[in-house]
Amino acid sequence: MILIGERINAGFKDIKEAIENKNADVIKEWATKQANAKANYIDVNMGTVSKDPATLIWMIEQVQSVCDLPISIDNNKPEILKEVIPVCKKSPIVNSSTAEAAKLDKLLPIVAEYNASIIGLSMDESGSPPNAEKRLENAGKIFEKIMEYDIPPENLFLDPIVMPLKYKQDQATAILEATSQFRFFSDPPCHIVCGLSNISIGAKHKKLLNRIFCTMLIANGLDAVILDVMDTELVDSILTAELVMNKQIYADSYIEAFRS
Amino acid sequence: MILIGERINAGFKDIKEAIENKNADVIKEWATKQANAKANYIDVNMGTVSKDPATLIWMIEQVQSVCDLPISIDNNKPEILKEVIPVCKKSPIVNSSTAEAAKLDKLLPIVAEYNASIIGLSMDESGSPPNAEKRLENAGKIFEKIMEYDIPPENLFLDPIVMPLKYKQDQATAILEATSQFRFFSDPPCHIVCGLSNISIGAKHKKLLNRIFCTMLIANGLDAVILDVMDTELVDSILTAELVMNKQIYADSYIEAFRS
Repeated sequence: MILIGERINAGFKDIKEAIENKNADVIKEWATKQANAKANYIDVNMGTVSKDPATLIWMIEQVQSVCDLPISIDNNKPEILKEVIPVCKKSPIVNSSTAEAAKLDKLLPIVAEYNASIIGLSMDESGSPPNAEKRLENAGKIFEKIMEYDIPPENLFLDPIVMPLKYKQDQATAILEATSQFRFFSDPPCHIVCGLSNISIGAKHKKLLNRIFCTMLIANGLDAVILDVMDTELVDSILTAELVMNKQIYADSYIEAFRS
Repeated sequence: MILIGERINAGFKDIKEAIENKNADVIKEWATKQANAKANYIDVNMGTVSKDPATLIWMIEQVQSVCDLPISIDNNKPEILKEVIPVCKKSPIVNSSTAEAAKLDKLLPIVAEYNASIIGLSMDESGSPPNAEKRLENAGKIFEKIMEYDIPPENLFLDPIVMPLKYKQDQATAILEATSQFRFFSDPPCHIVCGLSNISIGAKHKKLLNRIFCTMLIANGLDAVILDVMDTELVDSILTAELVMNKQIYADSYIEAFRS
């Protein structure tokens, strides 16, 4: 499973303040904590605090000063990405683009040039998809575009668009169904990723819902997730679900081995 | 979800001793505890302690003296079932039969006569199924037989045969796949059940594995389970997975409501 640590995001107050005050320690601390929790990528998002690529570059440099993990660049502006991607020491993920052709035609040349990966959201200009079929249609459009730009499937992370269970309960099975179909676009398949915590927006039992939904997505082929990697119960659930899916060889102490 | 409480089974030492000593209190206590934990059926198994239907009848009478739940009769001997089923106040489940025609031809007339339900194991005389296809083939044989005896699909609980992850890791995905197909035998579908704790035989993180595997099975259509209903984390996982599957309407306090 590819674990993308979500925490260095200006949506969190401490990160917002750290960006405003150029407090590198907060960024470094969250990078280190997520690396120690075995994140595979560190997502970096400057939110609305700044529109200056220099801000994002500064954040990424802080992360790269304390760990050697690749970055998930949480930004979809071509002019910013052009400046930020070259700073990344390892091949980053661009997070993200919708299925709109005009957006993909601007982003994918940059992604291809740097052999980066990209998260493709299975939604378009009409907004969040109402069912599994629309998700598949949008994913198909993204797939065609990455082939057009010679981007290999393993550099694509398709996202089924997770919606809050509390407000869109009927979408959950549509998300599971779409996920189970994304595997079949190519062989070898692309990755399938989601922003997990969306499922529990407004819910009371957030952490429980996050780990149950993640487990059900893994049963349907999810192999990457943007998550709170500090949530050990969630990570334990992911490790266990991957054993069930025969992605890791069973060992009695698989959790202890992961943490050591 | 149909929760079948597994605890009144002579495989547990306290139950074995309770049968040997005719200690009704132990049976009653476990019936009450499982009923309070919201079991929908109480499984009753006299193991190898006795071959006398009177023993099983005595056990069932103890259960029925403290709760009004239906019984899962954990026995497959026609001569025993003929005497035991009439004692059940509510329509019981017969647990269980393999797909062997000779066995089904003896059991199904009794099941049909009393409008009981039956757990059909997707295995045959050749032993545990090696893959999803064999599970489906065996399930198909059971399905044909219940139609022959005019037993409605809702009285059939197909079991995909859960094997220990530790010893048969590659079977887990076969079990998930078979489960996802069992839904399509009829409309309305039959139930799909499993003996959950088999998955964690020999494993170190038993409870975690039980609840993760159960969650993944629910994503594939499982709607009944023989389980440790006292395991609240497992039951919480089941309740949450059922919300995701849109089987229950979302409410913030769905867990508290279930327990109240």
